[in-house]
Amino acid sequence: MCATFHAQLDELIIDLVRMTRLASQMMTNAAIALHQADAPLAAVVIAKCDQLNAMHDDTEQRCIVVLARREPVAGDPRAVVAVLRAVGHLKRMGNLARHIALIARFKHPNPMIADEVRPVLARMSLLASQFAEDAAGAIQRRDCVSAGQLAEADHEVNALRRHLFGILFAADWSHGVEHAVDAALIGRYYERFADHAVAVAAEARYLASCGLPESHGLETGSRLR
Amino acid sequence: MCATFHAQLDELIIDLVRMTRLASQMMTNAAIALHQADAPLAAVVIAKCDQLNAMHDDTEQRCIVVLARREPVAGDPRAVVAVLRAVGHLKRMGNLARHIALIARFKHPNPMIADEVRPVLARMSLLASQFAEDAAGAIQRRDCVSAGQLAEADHEVNALRRHLFGILFAADWSHGVEHAVDAALIGRYYERFADHAVAVAAEARYLASCGLPESHGLETGSRLR
Repeated sequence: MCATFHAQLDELIIDLVRMTRLASQMMTNAAIALHQADAPLAAVVIAKCDQLNAMHDDTEQRCIVVLARREPVAGDPRAVVAVLRAVGHLKRMGNLARHIALIARFKHPNPMIADEVRPVLARMSLLASQFAEDAAGAIQRRDCVSAGQLAEADHEVNALRRHLFGILFAADWSHGVEHAVDAALIGRYYERFADHAVAVAAEARYLASCGLPESHGLETGSRLR
Repeated sequence: MCATFHAQLDELIIDLVRMTRLASQMMTNAAIALHQADAPLAAVVIAKCDQLNAMHDDTEQRCIVVLARREPVAGDPRAVVAVLRAVGHLKRMGNLARHIALIARFKHPNPMIADEVRPVLARMSLLASQFAEDAAGAIQRRDCVSAGQLAEADHEVNALRRHLFGILFAADWSHGVEHAVDAALIGRYYERFADHAVAVAAEARYLASCGLPESHGLETGSRLR
């Protein structure tokens, strides 16, 4: 591959890592806004969603420019297609964080999470944010092993969702239908966010196979915990 | 553009239309399986999901082959990227239809939809399937106008979801938390399926701009009703 293609692809991947970290931060803040009924923080998340969407559009356009190069280096478009797929997932992740923030804002200042489901939803939100942070690290290091571990860890999210339903459907649930439906949908958003983060990390495989070294100019991401 | 590129792109689009029609059919059958507690039909939908996933993988691979062509014709990859985005949406649509089918199978033979929400969920499922059928037509005809109308029609789906929540949260809801959560999630799956169908149709714009004529060898799709 020629130096220009290398450099363009490296820039795309650096922005992919930045977007993934932004999505992680958005979900962290959305969950805090929800759990602490913090409307100003919810507004920050909603605004960040526009920023993430703009980064998505910009990155996608640059992928198309790279693919349109007429030199033979464009002959292996697999890594660029991996970036395209990943930014599609990231756009959805931003939207899911925005959903959580909108619920937090809509329900403010009423408490919206019943005590019984608070720990399970908090754990789901933590995993969702952490998965995105770990996906950023996997992409940055072209680290297929971490990506595989993330897919394994996704089972915990699914187990938490089943646990959540167990609480909501128990005979002693006393918070009524609306709180239950809200909690079920919030759980669904966390679960989907985590699924998308796993899918982003899985693209590390294609970035590793293109032979591009680890991206520079980025802080080190956290490893899987 | 050279004849080979034209032909390859045309084949990709023909398969995109077929996949979109398959997704529509899957959602129609999933909704019937759910509303009529038809477990064998639910099993058919679940099996079709594997078929749609295989078509997704095959189409994506062929997109990469087309992008890897080293002739100058690969210089406008926009239409191919549109196909890539569209098949990503279609994979999700297949999964959403599968979710509905899995609920139908899991709850069988117990009735699972309360009479109060049956009409609104039936209408949502009808719109979801119809949107996919209309998206297939829009892609086949490179019809940006229909794609735009579809985005407008999506408002009805959102209104139906609000109406559904109004029923579930009303003081006279007598079917308990589990039925309410199920109905809310089913409504969410229909809504997301419809959103993805709108996104598939929106790709007609990029296929129109690449100057490729209407795909042949396909039956005519229904127009927007």
